[in-house]
Amino acid sequence: MTKADTIFKEFREHSVAEFFKKNRQMLGYSGKIRSLTTIVHEYVTNGLDACEEAGILPDIYVRIEQLGNEHYRVTVQDNGPGIPKTHVGKVFAQMLAGTKFHRFIQQRGQQGIGASGCTMYSQITTGKPTKIVTSPQKGKIYECEVMFDVKRNRPLISGEVEYPGDMQGTKIIAEFKDVTFNWSDYGPAEYLRRTAVANPHAKITFVAPDKQRFVYERAVHVLPKKPKPSKPHPKGITVDDLLDYAHHAKARTIKSFLTQTFDRMSSAKADEIEKLTSIDFKRKPDSVTWRDAEEIVDAIKKTKFLAPNTSNLYPMGEKQIEKAILNVLEPEFHAVRTRSPSVYRGGVPFIVEVGIAYGGKAGKGNGDSAKTEVMRFANRAPLLFDAGGDVITKVVNEIDWKRYGMRKLDDVPATIIVNVTSTYIPYTSAGKQAIADIDEIHKEVALALMEVGRSVGSYIRREARKGEKQAKRKTLLKYVPEVAGAVAKLTGDSKKELEVKLLDMINRKYAAGQMGDGPEEERDG
Amino acid sequence: MTKADTIFKEFREHSVAEFFKKNRQMLGYSGKIRSLTTIVHEYVTNGLDACEEAGILPDIYVRIEQLGNEHYRVTVQDNGPGIPKTHVGKVFAQMLAGTKFHRFIQQRGQQGIGASGCTMYSQITTGKPTKIVTSPQKGKIYECEVMFDVKRNRPLISGEVEYPGDMQGTKIIAEFKDVTFNWSDYGPAEYLRRTAVANPHAKITFVAPDKQRFVYERAVHVLPKKPKPSKPHPKGITVDDLLDYAHHAKARTIKSFLTQTFDRMSSAKADEIEKLTSIDFKRKPDSVTWRDAEEIVDAIKKTKFLAPNTSNLYPMGEKQIEKAILNVLEPEFHAVRTRSPSVYRGGVPFIVEVGIAYGGKAGKGNGDSAKTEVMRFANRAPLLFDAGGDVITKVVNEIDWKRYGMRKLDDVPATIIVNVTSTYIPYTSAGKQAIADIDEIHKEVALALMEVGRSVGSYIRREARKGEKQAKRKTLLKYVPEVAGAVAKLTGDSKKELEVKLLDMINRKYAAGQMGDGPEEERDG
Repeated sequence: MTKADTIFKEFREHSVAEFFKKNRQMLGYSGKIRSLTTIVHEYVTNGLDACEEAGILPDIYVRIEQLGNEHYRVTVQDNGPGIPKTHVGKVFAQMLAGTKFHRFIQQRGQQGIGASGCTMYSQITTGKPTKIVTSPQKGKIYECEVMFDVKRNRPLISGEVEYPGDMQGTKIIAEFKDVTFNWSDYGPAEYLRRTAVANPHAKITFVAPDKQRFVYERAVHVLPKKPKPSKPHPKGITVDDLLDYAHHAKARTIKSFLTQTFDRMSSAKADEIEKLTSIDFKRKPDSVTWRDAEEIVDAIKKTKFLAPNTSNLYPMGEKQIEKAILNVLEPEFHAVRTRSPSVYRGGVPFIVEVGIAYGGKAGKGNGDSAKTEVMRFANRAPLLFDAGGDVITKVVNEIDWKRYGMRKLDDVPATIIVNVTSTYIPYTSAGKQAIADIDEIHKEVALALMEVGRSVGSYIRREARKGEKQAKRKTLLKYVPEVAGAVAKLTGDSKKELEVKLLDMINRKYAAGQMGDGPEEERDG
Repeated sequence: MTKADTIFKEFREHSVAEFFKKNRQMLGYSGKIRSLTTIVHEYVTNGLDACEEAGILPDIYVRIEQLGNEHYRVTVQDNGPGIPKTHVGKVFAQMLAGTKFHRFIQQRGQQGIGASGCTMYSQITTGKPTKIVTSPQKGKIYECEVMFDVKRNRPLISGEVEYPGDMQGTKIIAEFKDVTFNWSDYGPAEYLRRTAVANPHAKITFVAPDKQRFVYERAVHVLPKKPKPSKPHPKGITVDDLLDYAHHAKARTIKSFLTQTFDRMSSAKADEIEKLTSIDFKRKPDSVTWRDAEEIVDAIKKTKFLAPNTSNLYPMGEKQIEKAILNVLEPEFHAVRTRSPSVYRGGVPFIVEVGIAYGGKAGKGNGDSAKTEVMRFANRAPLLFDAGGDVITKVVNEIDWKRYGMRKLDDVPATIIVNVTSTYIPYTSAGKQAIADIDEIHKEVALALMEVGRSVGSYIRREARKGEKQAKRKTLLKYVPEVAGAVAKLTGDSKKELEVKLLDMINRKYAAGQMGDGPEEERDG
């Protein structure tokens, strides 16, 4: 046996579930607090997605009970459409299975890993199954217990019952050990508070282990528009993607394949592209070779297209961000900005929105010791962890905040809110807590932050000028009695009258709020 | 059809390769420079691992050629044992297949994803296969081209040839587009320089796109001890792991299963554990229930064990770190520390080593503008990216460096080297660029840094005292002529002689280097 043979005797194949069991930190299971927040995050985002896809105003109930030391039971119930019983097992105990992975659709979940990760973590820490109660059909309730066959990446279902009853949605009950609840910025309570901030159309009820009950009532009674699957935008499509689409296309010609597959690809645009290539677009799409695909992609790069159709992207919107900021932070000043849609790799459209709140309750801590706080969201789901690896944090740190009157960003009473909306968020890992540093997203976040930065900058400078004028006024006021006395002696006028006149003059010139530089601009955009 | 049925019509299953194709940023493919470094990293770590496992001093050759705009060819050749032809396809085009994933063995690669990720990235950016030339048997060479069937996560092999010839090892040739070479801290050149720093037993040759040739000669002619698979340590084993091991055990009794499976589990220890439980250890291991496993794990927690057997962990060692620091950084002062082995989750042993270099060529930039530089390594492989998410960066930022005489860490001419050695590095993502923030590792890194921090602190304070003494000396020297003149007048002695005597007195008391506080401690640990 050669050396190579000896070494390769150990060669094995593994399932994706085994991979994530061994590397559970990649799913967010590192640290006892983070693990519990990850669980709440996975269940709640699934619930919100299910409701929104079915056109239902979400009503999410979360309860965390302590059963022992580092041992908790988590119950999450939504009022969504329910899960057909044939799919319950795969949703909760099969990784890379789901409805979202292959579609261009703006939802929080997208990988078909999260809920199965919870089942796995429950099982490996407590040995117990996850209980599911769901009503996929009016008047009928289905109940079962799911275990995870990790080696085969397949569900094991037991205790199935079906009975008549009134229930809407899905309820998940699972136990976990090796997790801890606390009230920190990284815990489930803060996660749900931020979720409420970014989702004013959802009602969220949270019962903490100490039985405290938090109800975030619905502030907006209209559902955000239902996310629709979209077509990829031609800009940024890779040769490989194009070839893949072409070989699976049902269209008869390359031209009709292009117009049917891509967003903003009109018949005229397809003709324009054909002219830039040596390819006959009447050929069948499955005849496209790598070379052809390269030619088409090059031609697409040279062609102008409308920005991606955004009818399938639903950002929070400036009004909602403003509402969230005013309600929660009561700032002295704020500015918000929703950028126009842009596209990254593979024609994926995205929108960056930012809000900045200054003074008031903004920032972490109070008064002079307040520090800047950055709240990151992806499709309205709060990102609490892995801040260091996130494109948002990177851009926030790169911006020269001194230009906007903030000497050192850390020590400013400000809250910066950034939400990235996309049909596919490029997370740095399956734990979905940080957005990858992709050039196009980097640039959009920077532009948005600079825009609100300018607004804050003018506000801070205006306040500083007010401060300077007030200082001048105070100095002048100090000399009033002396000057009035001296003039009274010279002219024989009443010192009192002179004092009143002088005070009036000074106050008129340096009155607070009358700065002589136009009306206040309290917000931008 | 119910709402639920409509939504779940879209339910699909996906392969792990499709997942990583869509989420290629998780493998390190985000950004054109990072992508090229990722490729070099994957091929080079595989080459080093192969050589070391076969007991061969590594000789790694890397060439990067520019073929066009953002289009490069990468060639990597090692002198390892070669790959048996039946395995070539799976090594380069099947994810989660490999020799390392299931073993407790200290190697750089561990997931069976990296090399397949390169094949995928080459294919989706150029449409071309990856060429492999390997000699798994003396005198015989096997050559083929590998494409990746991403949907099925399986290799497609073509152009197979076998011929006689003299070659040792494996050569990989692949083309990539959408990548860029540069000389920055994040590029392949810096990656290979740092690899050479941490692997003085390897010869590394690098030919850059501009034909510049860098040869890092072997500085140590002894191979690090060959990594051996180890047994998991009982401390930190989870109930689930124990149950899994028990149900796959070939032992006849629970007792023999425990002593055969775990490190440091002597017959006496197994008896001690049996007494703490209600379980008869003569039962068959496959009869162990979750409850039993919980009892055993609880008993293990109450039992003292020897620290993990470290004969299968090979840290760089203080001498090698010192050599690396002295060769490359020529610092004024340095301190190194290899901590004792520790264990994290599931009984995985690890060792933290740190080195700190101060002054000289240490730090980024030169002279007064020099800034602190942190070099992170995992099993001697440099980690260039995702610094923000890494436990090492977090600990470095948490340490109160002021206590060690460094006012603000950023502005100090220091290089901090941290290497984590383990049979399984808990990376934050499949891109293997950051180590997860796991409590046990966090603590070890902190302790190690504080130890070297103290050494640097005493050095800096000593230097500061030297500076103060020199200042005193200068002040006294200024008064020598005056004092000598005055005394000469009083006593009639020669002013010249008095001056000489006074100078001598002052110099003796304040001579540089004679501080009166014991011999220099140039290093710690």
